Amino acid sequence: MKRIAVLTSGGDAPGMNAAVRAVVEQGAHHGIEVYGVYYGYKGLVEGDFRKLESKDTQHALKLGGTMLYSARFPEFAQADIQKQAFDQLKKADIDALVVIGGDGSFQGALALTKLGFPAIGIPGTIDNDIPGTEYTIGFDTAVSSALEAIDRISDTAASHNRTFVIEVMGRHAGDIAVWAGVAAGADAIVIPENAYEMEDIVHRVRQGRERGKDYSLIVLAEGVSNVDDFVEKYQALAAEQEVRGVSLSHIQRGGMPTSRDRVYATLMGARAVDCLREGKAGIYLGIQGEQLAEFDIIDTLSKAKHKLRQDLFILNRDLTQR
Amino acid sequence: MKRIAVLTSGGDAPGMNAAVRAVVEQGAHHGIEVYGVYYGYKGLVEGDFRKLESKDTQHALKLGGTMLYSARFPEFAQADIQKQAFDQLKKADIDALVVIGGDGSFQGALALTKLGFPAIGIPGTIDNDIPGTEYTIGFDTAVSSALEAIDRISDTAASHNRTFVIEVMGRHAGDIAVWAGVAAGADAIVIPENAYEMEDIVHRVRQGRERGKDYSLIVLAEGVSNVDDFVEKYQALAAEQEVRGVSLSHIQRGGMPTSRDRVYATLMGARAVDCLREGKAGIYLGIQGEQLAEFDIIDTLSKAKHKLRQDLFILNRDLTQR
Amino acid sequence: MKRIAVLTSGGDAPGMNAAVRAVVEQGAHHGIEVYGVYYGYKGLVEGDFRKLESKDTQHALKLGGTMLYSARFPEFAQADIQKQAFDQLKKADIDALVVIGGDGSFQGALALTKLGFPAIGIPGTIDNDIPGTEYTIGFDTAVSSALEAIDRISDTAASHNRTFVIEVMGRHAGDIAVWAGVAAGADAIVIPENAYEMEDIVHRVRQGRERGKDYSLIVLAEGVSNVDDFVEKYQALAAEQEVRGVSLSHIQRGGMPTSRDRVYATLMGARAVDCLREGKAGIYLGIQGEQLAEFDIIDTLSKAKHKLRQDLFILNRDLTQR
Amino acid sequence: MKRIAVLTSGGDAPGMNAAVRAVVEQGAHHGIEVYGVYYGYKGLVEGDFRKLESKDTQHALKLGGTMLYSARFPEFAQADIQKQAFDQLKKADIDALVVIGGDGSFQGALALTKLGFPAIGIPGTIDNDIPGTEYTIGFDTAVSSALEAIDRISDTAASHNRTFVIEVMGRHAGDIAVWAGVAAGADAIVIPENAYEMEDIVHRVRQGRERGKDYSLIVLAEGVSNVDDFVEKYQALAAEQEVRGVSLSHIQRGGMPTSRDRVYATLMGARAVDCLREGKAGIYLGIQGEQLAEFDIIDTLSKAKHKLRQDLFILNRDLTQR
Repeated sequence: MKRIAVLTSGGDAPGMNAAVRAVVEQGAHHGIEVYGVYYGYKGLVEGDFRKLESKDTQHALKLGGTMLYSARFPEFAQADIQKQAFDQLKKADIDALVVIGGDGSFQGALALTKLGFPAIGIPGTIDNDIPGTEYTIGFDTAVSSALEAIDRISDTAASHNRTFVIEVMGRHAGDIAVWAGVAAGADAIVIPENAYEMEDIVHRVRQGRERGKDYSLIVLAEGVSNVDDFVEKYQALAAEQEVRGVSLSHIQRGGMPTSRDRVYATLMGARAVDCLREGKAGIYLGIQGEQLAEFDIIDTLSKAKHKLRQDLFILNRDLTQR
Repeated sequence: MKRIAVLTSGGDAPGMNAAVRAVVEQGAHHGIEVYGVYYGYKGLVEGDFRKLESKDTQHALKLGGTMLYSARFPEFAQADIQKQAFDQLKKADIDALVVIGGDGSFQGALALTKLGFPAIGIPGTIDNDIPGTEYTIGFDTAVSSALEAIDRISDTAASHNRTFVIEVMGRHAGDIAVWAGVAAGADAIVIPENAYEMEDIVHRVRQGRERGKDYSLIVLAEGVSNVDDFVEKYQALAAEQEVRGVSLSHIQRGGMPTSRDRVYATLMGARAVDCLREGKAGIYLGIQGEQLAEFDIIDTLSKAKHKLRQDLFILNRDLTQR
Repeated sequence: MKRIAVLTSGGDAPGMNAAVRAVVEQGAHHGIEVYGVYYGYKGLVEGDFRKLESKDTQHALKLGGTMLYSARFPEFAQADIQKQAFDQLKKADIDALVVIGGDGSFQGALALTKLGFPAIGIPGTIDNDIPGTEYTIGFDTAVSSALEAIDRISDTAASHNRTFVIEVMGRHAGDIAVWAGVAAGADAIVIPENAYEMEDIVHRVRQGRERGKDYSLIVLAEGVSNVDDFVEKYQALAAEQEVRGVSLSHIQRGGMPTSRDRVYATLMGARAVDCLREGKAGIYLGIQGEQLAEFDIIDTLSKAKHKLRQDLFILNRDLTQR
Repeated sequence: MKRIAVLTSGGDAPGMNAAVRAVVEQGAHHGIEVYGVYYGYKGLVEGDFRKLESKDTQHALKLGGTMLYSARFPEFAQADIQKQAFDQLKKADIDALVVIGGDGSFQGALALTKLGFPAIGIPGTIDNDIPGTEYTIGFDTAVSSALEAIDRISDTAASHNRTFVIEVMGRHAGDIAVWAGVAAGADAIVIPENAYEMEDIVHRVRQGRERGKDYSLIVLAEGVSNVDDFVEKYQALAAEQEVRGVSLSHIQRGGMPTSRDRVYATLMGARAVDCLREGKAGIYLGIQGEQLAEFDIIDTLSKAKHKLRQDLFILNRDLTQR
C-alpha cells in the first residue's frame, strides 16, 4: 500500500479535521502517501485530489468544519458515476480510500469496495445516529455547543422566571437533546424516540417552580416539532408562565472540537489506515464501550438501528418527577 | 446617607451583577448599607427588599443575568404607583436608589427624584442604545456571544461554500450588528440606521467569492427584517449561492460577562454611590471616550439620540467594496 | 429511608455540584430529604449540615468547584473521630451518606459503613485515578481546560516556531497528559506510567519540524518531573530549538463542567440514592464502557490499580514516529 | 501607490491577523497589491515576501498568533542591515510598509522612513504599554484570557477557602493586572506603577473574609515580583490563610481574539493603508477615547510614557477598603 486518499462527506462535523490529520500522520508512519479529496464524492469523480502533509493538517486538527470541504452529490448512487470515481482513483495510483461521514456516505465506500477498490468508513456526524457505534465524530462538540447556549439562555430565563423551550438538532435521533438536556438540568426532554404528553411536561415544570426553581427549561429535538408550534401548544396549557422558544440551529454544528472528539477522531483515523493495510474494506469503524470497534457496512446499516441512551432519558424523567 | 437600594429593570444584561456588587462594596466602603430590590419596579412597589452583603454578591460578579431578577411593570408610569414605591422606600428607611436598566427604566428614577427621593441610573442593556453614553453594560458580552456563534457558523459556511445570513439583536440600534460584523469579517452588515440595496449586497458577496473566499456572511440587525424574509429576497437575486439564515436570538443575552462589561459595570456601580453621596440625583451615568460621564435624565433622553459608530459601518463597507 | 446526607471531600472537581444536585432531586423523587454536609468529613464530625432543596442546587449544577466546600481532615482515619461523625449523623436522624471524592475519601465511607452507617462513594477527582471506574467526575473538564490552554499556547509556539513543554496535573496518573496530548497533536507525551528517553523525544520533535510543522508541543505529567528541570534537560540536547516551559497548575481544576462531567455526575448521583434505598453500602459507583458500575470499596481499592488508556499513548507515539 | 508590504514583529498578539487581513482588503479596495513579509524584520532583510489575497487571510482573521510569524532580530538597529531591507523592498517594487508590533518595532519603521521608504506602525502587543494610544491589539484578549483563568481558579479558591495570588503578564505596565483584577473582584492588585504594603494587602484580605467572602484573590503583575517570592512573604504575615500562587504565563498570549481586538485591529489596518496613500509615514496609529489617532514615532516614543488607568486601580482599592 503506497497511497491512500481521504474525503469528508455529508454535513460537516467538528473533529473531521483531526481524523484527516490522523490519516495523514499514520500514513506517514507507515511510509504511505495520503491524498485529500476535495468536496467529497463530487471531488472523487472529478479527480480533485491534493497531497496532504504534516504542515497542511497540523493546525486544522483543532479547527471545526472540514478542511477538505463537503458537497451534496446524490449522483454517486449511480453505477456509472461510481465507475468514474474508481477510474480517477486508479489514474492517480491510489490504493485505498477513507470516507469520513454519515451512514449515507458509507454506501459510497461499500460501492467502491464492491468494484474492487478498498474503502473504509469513519463515522462523522454531529447527530450520533449511526448504528453500531456509540459515538460519532462531532457529537461531543455539538452537545457542548448546545449546552453552552442553553447555559446562556438559562441566565435570562432565571432573571425573568421564564420557561424556555430550546430546539436542538436531531431529526431522527434524540441524542443531542438527551445529553444536553441532562447536563442542563432540563425539566423535560422531548425526543423522536419517545412519546410525550404535553400535560405531563406542564406538570413537571409547575412542580419545579413549586420546589423553588426560578426558571424552567424544555429541550426539544427538531425531529419532534418546530419550536414555535411546540411553544404555542405548551403555552395554551400553561397560561400562567412566560414561555419563549429558541432554535439553536447551525450554532451546534461548528466550533473547535472538544478533546473527546479530537481523541476519538484521531484514534479512528489512525486505525482506518491500519485496517486498510491489513486488507480490510467495506467496513466502518466506531466506538463501543470506549473501545475501537469494526462493523460491516452492508450488514450493520441494513439491519441495525442506532440505540439512544434510554437510561439517560429515564434519569432525567425521574429527577423531575414528583 | 445611611442606606441605599439598588434594582435591575428591563431585559437582563451580563454585567448587571457586577454593578450590583460594586454598589454593595462601595456602599460598605462608606459605611452605607445596601438593599437589593427584587423584580425591579414591581418589587419596589411591593417592598421586596433584602440586605446585600459581600458574601451575597462575591460570586454573582462573574455570572450573567441579574441576581435581583427583573420584571415588566408598565404600571410604574402612574403617579399613584410611584407614590407607593416612595412610601415603601421611606418605610424601609432607605435614602437613595440606584436603577440599573435601559432608558425606559431611567424614567422611573426621574419620577422618584421629582417626588423628592434621589435616584440615579446606570445603563444596562445589551443593545447599547442609550443616548449620551457610548457604552452600556452587557453590550460587550452580547457582541462577544454573537461573534462566537458566528465563528461557529462560519466553519460550516466554509465547509460547504455557503452564504449565511445571521440575525442579531437590535430593534432600533445596529450596534451589535456592526461590531460583530466587523469582527467576523462579514461581507455585508445590514442595520436599521442605514438604507441598503439587496443588489449591492449580492454584488459584494460575489466579489468576495471571486477573490477566493470560500464562504460569505451577512450580519442583519433584527430591526431591519426577519431573517427568513431576508434570505428569501436575497436568494431570489443570487440563485447560484446556497443561502442559509440563522437567528441568534436569546443566546446573545446571557453568559458570563466579559472583562470590559465587568470593569465598566464596576466603575459605574461605585460611582453611582459616590454621586448619591454628593447629592446628585435625576442623572444617569455613562462612558464617553472610555471615561465616566454624567447625563441629566430629563434633558438627554428627550433631546439626544444614541449615535451608532458609523465609522465602523463605513470601514466594513470599504473593506468589501471593489 | 427518610433522610440522606451528601458531602464532597478532597480536591474540588467540576461536576461535583451536578452530583449533589442529582442526589437532592433523586432524593425528592423518592420522598427523601437530603442534607448537605459542609466542609467534607470535618463538617460531618462537627454536624455542619443544612437541608438542600431544588432552589439551592438548580444553578450550582453548572458551576465548577463544590458548593458544599471541602477541607483536609486526616483525623478522620481515627476510630474515635469516626464515632463522632456517626453520632452526629444519628442525632440529625440521617439514614445514609453519599461521599463524593477520591479513593482516600472512600475509606471514610467504608469506615462508617462498618460502624453500621450505610455510606456509598462517587468518584470525584480530576485525575481519573480511581481503580475500577474508567471515569471520574471532573476529568473531562480538566482535559478540556488543559487543552484550551494548550491551544492558546500553540498560537504563540507557531508564531515563533518554538517548542513548548506543558506540565499538566497527574502525580501518579498520566490520564490528563494522554488525553490532552492526543487531542492537541503533541509531538510527545511524558507520563509516570511509561519510561521515556529524552533523545527519543528530541528526535520526534526534529522529525516533526522536518515534515514542515511550524511548532512543537511536549505534554508532561507533573508526576514525572518539574517542567523547568525537564526543559533544561531537553534544551541541552536540542540547542537549535527555542524551548519554553509552562505549568498549567490550578487552571485545570475549576471552570464550568463539560456536558460529559455533568451527565455522568448526574447519573451517579441519582444511582447512589437508589443504591442506598436498595440497602447497598460500602461500595462506590463508577463508569465502565460508558455504563454504570459498582465496586466494593474494600476489595477494589486494595487490589486493583487504575488503568491508563495505553492504546491512546501508543496511538500518539505511532503518529509521531518516523 | 501600487504595492504595500506588511509585517508583524515582537511577541505575537491576538488580533494581529485581523490587522493583516484589513491591510490586504483595504489595499484591494484601492487597487493596491499587498505582500506579507514573513518573520518580521528578519524576513524583510532576507526578502521573504509573499503576495496575500482574500483567501489567505479570510480565516486567519479569527485566529490568535500571527500568520506572518515573528522573530527576534536585534540586528535591525544597524544602519547597514536597514539598507539591505530597503534594497529588498525596492527590488520587489514595494512602495510602503506597515509594521504591526510594539514600540521597539516602530523604531525600524522610523529608520526606513528616514531612508526614504515610507513606513507606518500599528500597535500590537498584549501589554498595552505603548505611549499615546490607550489601546494595543491583543490587550483585550489577554485580559479576557487572564480573567477566564482567574475565574476557574476562583472555583477552587472558594471550595477550599483559599487565598490565591495570580501572576499576570506586565513587566513595566500593570494594565492586564488592573483590568483583570477589577473584573475578577480581586481583594488587591499589585502593579509596578504603584507602591504597596504587604500588611495592607493582608488587611484587605482579612477584611473580606470578615465580610463573609469565602475566598480571596490577589492579582500580581510580573514586573513587581515572582509569584513564589510574593506568596512566601505574604504567607509569613498571614499564617491563618491557606495561600497558593499561580503564574498564568503564556496562556495569556494566544487564543482567538475578542471582538474588540478584531474591530480595532481592522480599523487600524485599514487606516494604515489610507495614511500611506495620503503620504504619511514615520507615524503610528492608536486609539484615544475610542477614536483613531496618529502619533509621530520620533516624538511620542521619546517623550511620552504610557498611562495606566489609575482610576481603575483606585476603584479597586476603594471597593476593598474598610
